[in-house]
Amino acid sequence: MVKVLAINAGSSSLKWKLFQMPQQQVLAQGLIEKIGLSDSQVSFILGKKHYQFNWIIENHRMAVEILLKLLREYKIVVNLDEIKAIGHRFVNGGNLFSKSVVVNEQVLQQLETVKELAPLHNPSNIMAIKAFARVLPTAISVVVFDTGFHQSLPIKNFLYSLPYEYYQKFHVRKYGAHGISYRYVFSKLLEYSDLNAEETNAIIMHLGSGASICAIKQGKSFDTSMGFSPVSGITMQTRAGDVDASLLVYLQEKLGIDPQQMLKVLNQQSGILGISGISSDMRDVLANVTDSRRAQLAIEIFVNQIVKYLGAYVAELQRVDALVFTGGIGENIPLIRQLICQQLGYIGIKIDSAKNQQAIKNRLISLPQSTAGIWVIPTNEELMIAQDAYRLADLKA
Amino acid sequence: MVKVLAINAGSSSLKWKLFQMPQQQVLAQGLIEKIGLSDSQVSFILGKKHYQFNWIIENHRMAVEILLKLLREYKIVVNLDEIKAIGHRFVNGGNLFSKSVVVNEQVLQQLETVKELAPLHNPSNIMAIKAFARVLPTAISVVVFDTGFHQSLPIKNFLYSLPYEYYQKFHVRKYGAHGISYRYVFSKLLEYSDLNAEETNAIIMHLGSGASICAIKQGKSFDTSMGFSPVSGITMQTRAGDVDASLLVYLQEKLGIDPQQMLKVLNQQSGILGISGISSDMRDVLANVTDSRRAQLAIEIFVNQIVKYLGAYVAELQRVDALVFTGGIGENIPLIRQLICQQLGYIGIKIDSAKNQQAIKNRLISLPQSTAGIWVIPTNEELMIAQDAYRLADLKA
Repeated sequence: MVKVLAINAGSSSLKWKLFQMPQQQVLAQGLIEKIGLSDSQVSFILGKKHYQFNWIIENHRMAVEILLKLLREYKIVVNLDEIKAIGHRFVNGGNLFSKSVVVNEQVLQQLETVKELAPLHNPSNIMAIKAFARVLPTAISVVVFDTGFHQSLPIKNFLYSLPYEYYQKFHVRKYGAHGISYRYVFSKLLEYSDLNAEETNAIIMHLGSGASICAIKQGKSFDTSMGFSPVSGITMQTRAGDVDASLLVYLQEKLGIDPQQMLKVLNQQSGILGISGISSDMRDVLANVTDSRRAQLAIEIFVNQIVKYLGAYVAELQRVDALVFTGGIGENIPLIRQLICQQLGYIGIKIDSAKNQQAIKNRLISLPQSTAGIWVIPTNEELMIAQDAYRLADLKA
Repeated sequence: MVKVLAINAGSSSLKWKLFQMPQQQVLAQGLIEKIGLSDSQVSFILGKKHYQFNWIIENHRMAVEILLKLLREYKIVVNLDEIKAIGHRFVNGGNLFSKSVVVNEQVLQQLETVKELAPLHNPSNIMAIKAFARVLPTAISVVVFDTGFHQSLPIKNFLYSLPYEYYQKFHVRKYGAHGISYRYVFSKLLEYSDLNAEETNAIIMHLGSGASICAIKQGKSFDTSMGFSPVSGITMQTRAGDVDASLLVYLQEKLGIDPQQMLKVLNQQSGILGISGISSDMRDVLANVTDSRRAQLAIEIFVNQIVKYLGAYVAELQRVDALVFTGGIGENIPLIRQLICQQLGYIGIKIDSAKNQQAIKNRLISLPQSTAGIWVIPTNEELMIAQDAYRLADLKA
């Protein structure tokens, strides 16, 4: 019986969850936000109690120190060395990592070389790993990659139609995202169904604030909608998804902004928010569909883009055994699932509208005659990270 | 019996074809290249003879004058006023034009307002229209739009997931391309088959040096792979098709180039050429597949991207009556058609491999049990332009 920390570090945040393993019990979880700013926020949940503080947290190392201090003060742990392993989410491991690894000097050096592939996230991930190594040297650190699951993509699906040397010299390719989520959800699909990994073709839709779709062929990621970065693919809450390259240049000139500012627009002001003009939150937008044509349009476009990617992946896979919804929208909004699935009748996929209303309870929401099972499986990236850390730190011994 | 000129003006070129109408007989055709440079080339075909000259052609007006001079000198026309109408291809008519129109002052003013939507082509088109109006004022000018056919796209398929005001203020949307070709080929499909326009769902693949795919629902363009500009969609000879927006910024920094230079790479050094490193011509690439992994990869990616768009459009259309190949690659390379169609068995589309070998002769190359007919129909954009000019100039009277 040991404690394992799952860490998700952003450029100015540190999200954490402490598990009792192998029981998978959550002991506490929290978030440190606005690191490096004057109004940093520290919040956490212990049992049913919520705590919140406003402190000045200068950097990730200080955030880690504060976190460990809280764990002791609130008696979540008695001694820090009860924490045997720390699992770190790492956004983009480039071509170097297809699986989770225990951190050592060599791994740290390799992580440094792929830093620029996710300039907003990878550097913070590295900072957090180093901070824990200093402050809690007794724990084993494990890195879990969002891109690892997609390293099985065939080259025809990850290579862009650009001069080939960009791939060789600058590692330009499709990396995908949400790999930790896909791996977790796929393992749960196998657990809940009578499918076995090697024979299963599935399409998983991770529809959260970031959203992507993954085609799994014979148990392995075969194609995915996010590309070199998490800005492409389907319409997201505030991210644009696929756009025309010329259009960016045209808009930069029209708006008098530079490429970095253009990227900011694509990441933060586009998607559901940009179309609807109401909110980035699908629930707010849905609440406005009767009054706002743009709200309605945001839903139509979101659904239509998903349907198109599904159609493309069906063509690639030829046969689909399971269709899985996960992520905030995928798990919680029956209407979106309904709208998507009703476009899939042409390949014999049929949703059970009644079961769809209580999807989390039912898990399987397709009609018996459906050619593929439609599943709703809540994702749990932190648990996946903790499980990898627990397994690789070899704590069962 | 009248003569009609079809004109396709590029930034430094003028392509022409002179028709006898309504017989649709080609009297002569030619190309003036490198306009504005010191080594301009004038070439044309008359009967079975090819002519070529190297003259200095300073601008489009001079090119038009030269063309008319040649028509008289080579007795292709006796008097210039035999040419009753001139049809001009116009690349991007914005939201203003869904059909071909006769040019007048108001139309010319409208064309000026959409100039920047196709900065490489639209200004040359306008120059050519003005040059003919001066030099041959007796002929009626008609503008035929590459984007017109796609004005029927529903908003969910033409709107990007960007801040909505970009659409309102800057006309940012998907315009599509190859509309003249799609319109021609679709009319031929109706002529050759027993399908009627209003009930027909079809997918046409225009696979030329530029390439795109169009989903036609009940006789109207419903979705298409090219977007705001002709750089997006599927992999083309030298154009990249869809790429990740962040990747452009990343590459601009790595290569030390600006957005305009980046666009040049995407337009001229990417696609089949960029992947294969051998040639932009599919025939050259095919000739090298046994020796070059990159040649093989270029084919795989080209085919795979088409298959994915087809899958997406099948999901949108739900039912497809006809699948049509056109354009240089679509008309002439059986292997590419075979590779694409063999991925469509999951919806019951079946190619007749024997008929596919002599596709132009056979036209219909699917097996009788195929759920959709597979057709090969040569495109003829110039004829479509001449037909529109003939019809709108009301020359039957």
